[in-house]
Amino acid sequence: MTATVFASSYAPTFNGPEGQEDMPYLLTPGPLTTSRGVKLAMLADYGSRDIEFRQIVKRIRSSLLDLAHCGPTYECVIMQGSGTFAIEAALGSFCPTKRYKTLVVCNGAYGERAAKILNRLGRPVVTLDKGDSDAPTPDEIVAALNADRTISHLWLVHCETTSGIVNPIQAISKAVEGRALTIMVDAMSSFGALPLHMVEQNIDVMVSSSNKCLEGVPGFSYVVLKRDLLEASAGASHSVVLDLFEQWRGLETNGQFRFTPPTHALVAFNQALKEHEQQGGVEGRGARYTRNAQALVTGMAEIGFSTLLDEKLAGPIILT
Amino acid sequence: MTATVFASSYAPTFNGPEGQEDMPYLLTPGPLTTSRGVKLAMLADYGSRDIEFRQIVKRIRSSLLDLAHCGPTYECVIMQGSGTFAIEAALGSFCPTKRYKTLVVCNGAYGERAAKILNRLGRPVVTLDKGDSDAPTPDEIVAALNADRTISHLWLVHCETTSGIVNPIQAISKAVEGRALTIMVDAMSSFGALPLHMVEQNIDVMVSSSNKCLEGVPGFSYVVLKRDLLEASAGASHSVVLDLFEQWRGLETNGQFRFTPPTHALVAFNQALKEHEQQGGVEGRGARYTRNAQALVTGMAEIGFSTLLDEKLAGPIILT
Repeated sequence: MTATVFASSYAPTFNGPEGQEDMPYLLTPGPLTTSRGVKLAMLADYGSRDIEFRQIVKRIRSSLLDLAHCGPTYECVIMQGSGTFAIEAALGSFCPTKRYKTLVVCNGAYGERAAKILNRLGRPVVTLDKGDSDAPTPDEIVAALNADRTISHLWLVHCETTSGIVNPIQAISKAVEGRALTIMVDAMSSFGALPLHMVEQNIDVMVSSSNKCLEGVPGFSYVVLKRDLLEASAGASHSVVLDLFEQWRGLETNGQFRFTPPTHALVAFNQALKEHEQQGGVEGRGARYTRNAQALVTGMAEIGFSTLLDEKLAGPIILT
Repeated sequence: MTATVFASSYAPTFNGPEGQEDMPYLLTPGPLTTSRGVKLAMLADYGSRDIEFRQIVKRIRSSLLDLAHCGPTYECVIMQGSGTFAIEAALGSFCPTKRYKTLVVCNGAYGERAAKILNRLGRPVVTLDKGDSDAPTPDEIVAALNADRTISHLWLVHCETTSGIVNPIQAISKAVEGRALTIMVDAMSSFGALPLHMVEQNIDVMVSSSNKCLEGVPGFSYVVLKRDLLEASAGASHSVVLDLFEQWRGLETNGQFRFTPPTHALVAFNQALKEHEQQGGVEGRGARYTRNAQALVTGMAEIGFSTLLDEKLAGPIILT
């Protein structure tokens, strides 16, 4: 009975202009309130093996590669489930199982989660813990690599959802240039609003999801990565469903998913990508978030609150 | 450009009566064409940690337990991703890693997939292969169990999506009564349309998904199972995201998912469950599918086609 009450109180009226539906506005980092256009796209049922749907999937994968500034040697693999499914898929597909180690930078819940997953998978991991409100300097990363020559992979979060802290990916990437290090970035709460240039920043693997800065509905995540890394990962995954190589091979062979994709969430995301572009792409989305953040921080400061983070570290202010 | 064309050609007009939208009708086993009401439910954005959404999740879990005729010693765990995600989650949480084995009955792609997953997970497996158009007899199952006393788990598909074959779960369950055997059923293509009585049929674990006979949209799957089995599985999973014990503990602790759930797919499923009930529940849904199947089989027979399966084995004809 309560569910009926909720359903009717949540029914959108669609009487007002865009964004004025009679529904609570979600102020969470994601899932968030999506546009009317994104939601309306879900009013169509697509067959997951039909040509029209495969075209949409193809367009999404190609748009994500463009947004990450990838060259022709990169691939995009979509994974069913939330962002953490793509994180576990990437860790399980690429991180070493023995002899070598993954260095995980922790400054919030999501760095810690990556370390926890590696532990469960039995993959050697060392952490660089910066607490909840500080970012690592490039020198600290270099020192950690020098202290343990068996570190072959680096995992760090671009923007930590926990605090909004932005880690200095570009400076770190520059500092480790020339080393045999696979750089893996969790860009869950940044991709689409903070610039990410995978070629220039020499990022090997980037993971994000449908329902954060690109403002789609929740239901899937994706991994953008260097093709040679993907090809070398055949048989490496601890899982069948989370096997990125097999998932990619399925998509490449016939444009279809191996296992049923969330068709409505993907069609909604296709619309979300169009709106993202219409609204000025990464620059436009980042500028809107920055304006919102500044209004909030300024207003809160006027009534006596201060921010946890140093302003140089706080997203969505754009760091390079 | 092509994507725009598809989007507009797929835009539902909503001018006709229910089910008459100007869109292609999906005749696949799932994803399938959902009702207008199910799709309209997705026009609301819910916060995944909000009380309203948690109530919906609670109602869904409780409805699924009711539909499977479970007593108070059973639980329902929802898993992000397609049906295969819940299958791998269940196999990885409950099937033995050594000393004991899982017997997988194969008579189509989905039995084979379960065996493949167990192999990848390094869990001992034996198969009973019946080809693509035959079902195992209870005697064959008993013979397989007698031939290998280390078999502790049985995995079989209720209705194989590949051919529509229905395996005689109840007769098999009766034949193995009294043995220390964990019975696990993939009811992906049957649950909601063919009767399943977990207590009477002594089924320990049942796996199904959102987008088949209950006619929701794709995006998640679920496992209905005995609570003591779940409790004993702490730490057994090969994966963090697919860990059913931890997923259950999260849902029980605060009604929230550990990782972002597909909110729109869940809200749509809540509506799909209401419509399922309004349309006569399992009996009503099964009767409609049977009528449709009979119309198809009869019409095809008149123009010279015959069925692959013996009619006693073909779903959705209701076997006990």
